[in-house]
Amino acid sequence: MNEFRTIKLKKGIFERNNIVAQETREELTKQNTVLLNIMSSPGSGKTTVVVETIKALKAEICIAVMEADVDSDVDATAVAQAGAKVIQLHTGGMCHLDSQMTRQGIESLDPQNVDMIILENIGNLICTAAYDTGAHKNVMILSIPEGDDKPLKYPAMFRSADVLIISKIDALPMFDFNMEACISRAKSLNPTIEIFPISAKTGEGMDVWLNWVRQNIRQ
Amino acid sequence: MNEFRTIKLKKGIFERNNIVAQETREELTKQNTVLLNIMSSPGSGKTTVVVETIKALKAEICIAVMEADVDSDVDATAVAQAGAKVIQLHTGGMCHLDSQMTRQGIESLDPQNVDMIILENIGNLICTAAYDTGAHKNVMILSIPEGDDKPLKYPAMFRSADVLIISKIDALPMFDFNMEACISRAKSLNPTIEIFPISAKTGEGMDVWLNWVRQNIRQ
Repeated sequence: MNEFRTIKLKKGIFERNNIVAQETREELTKQNTVLLNIMSSPGSGKTTVVVETIKALKAEICIAVMEADVDSDVDATAVAQAGAKVIQLHTGGMCHLDSQMTRQGIESLDPQNVDMIILENIGNLICTAAYDTGAHKNVMILSIPEGDDKPLKYPAMFRSADVLIISKIDALPMFDFNMEACISRAKSLNPTIEIFPISAKTGEGMDVWLNWVRQNIRQ
Repeated sequence: MNEFRTIKLKKGIFERNNIVAQETREELTKQNTVLLNIMSSPGSGKTTVVVETIKALKAEICIAVMEADVDSDVDATAVAQAGAKVIQLHTGGMCHLDSQMTRQGIESLDPQNVDMIILENIGNLICTAAYDTGAHKNVMILSIPEGDDKPLKYPAMFRSADVLIISKIDALPMFDFNMEACISRAKSLNPTIEIFPISAKTGEGMDVWLNWVRQNIRQ
């Protein structure tokens, strides 16, 4: 076991990643484009939130989407049908996006006159949180069926997020989910995190999330 | 970009991993202990399935559990209360278990006269599938709320599993989940995969899963 070599390698990877991420962020800021990085477990409802956000805001905000997947095009098809410009990023088995992959996506997307780019990251609560993609804001989604203990089990993700969307609240009666405990656990890891409980299916809570998006576009 | 160096490094990691995994498997086989590796997304119900399996089988099978987590002890506490010998493995931020970590766990557990060790892997549908832990059988859990498209999006996991447990079937009426489509997608990736739809909450389907466990212990 040679711990020192491992640590040095990781440090190198993260340093290079952070430099590219910072460049991406600055370039996008100059052209008035906001990049949102949306992260969650597989199946927590990322795509549904993205689709409903596009439908609600497309008349007022020009949105483009980068769909990251290990292998498939399922989500890109759904997003294109909602009416946004979309590109699919295949990571070829990789479990997260880094800033270089994000940059390649943005270059292919060519976001002239785009107000907001949504990056739908790979479904993963661990690896995605470790890499700065260049996003202005990180949004994580936790769905009710996953349970209120997730902040205890995946603290790095909750620390890295500016916003926590608690999704599928229409399913609350079916699951043993303590909303107060979940919010308190998230806040104790990240006191400034903004938390929006929503149901993309019934529309409950969507207005608060959509207003947050509007405010962050027009800063 | 130096693709060649990356590929070589990964090959080295996997080769070493596979050697240790194979040694572990052979040693456990000699002492009549079966190692089950259970993998899934965060929040799909791994711990509940493990707890209900222990409760149902502890009178006839000696079960020990290794709970892998990034950081917390939440699940180990629940499993200990169910009446199994349990140890907690902290990966310190790592997104999967490899064969060396699994081996360390087994050595600490000291499984004399144990019929079955259950390894509850990190909640992750990507990275965990890439590493042979030394388990005799890989079991993956997909919960109804995650959606029937997951085989399309995380194919490596479905290919690596001997068994697919489709959990939380009591929630079927609340979610748009096509069971037939999900099973057909899983089988097209992995024709020999055995599929058990269950609800650990109501007990539906548990008997078929428990019989599979019994048969695989007594081989």
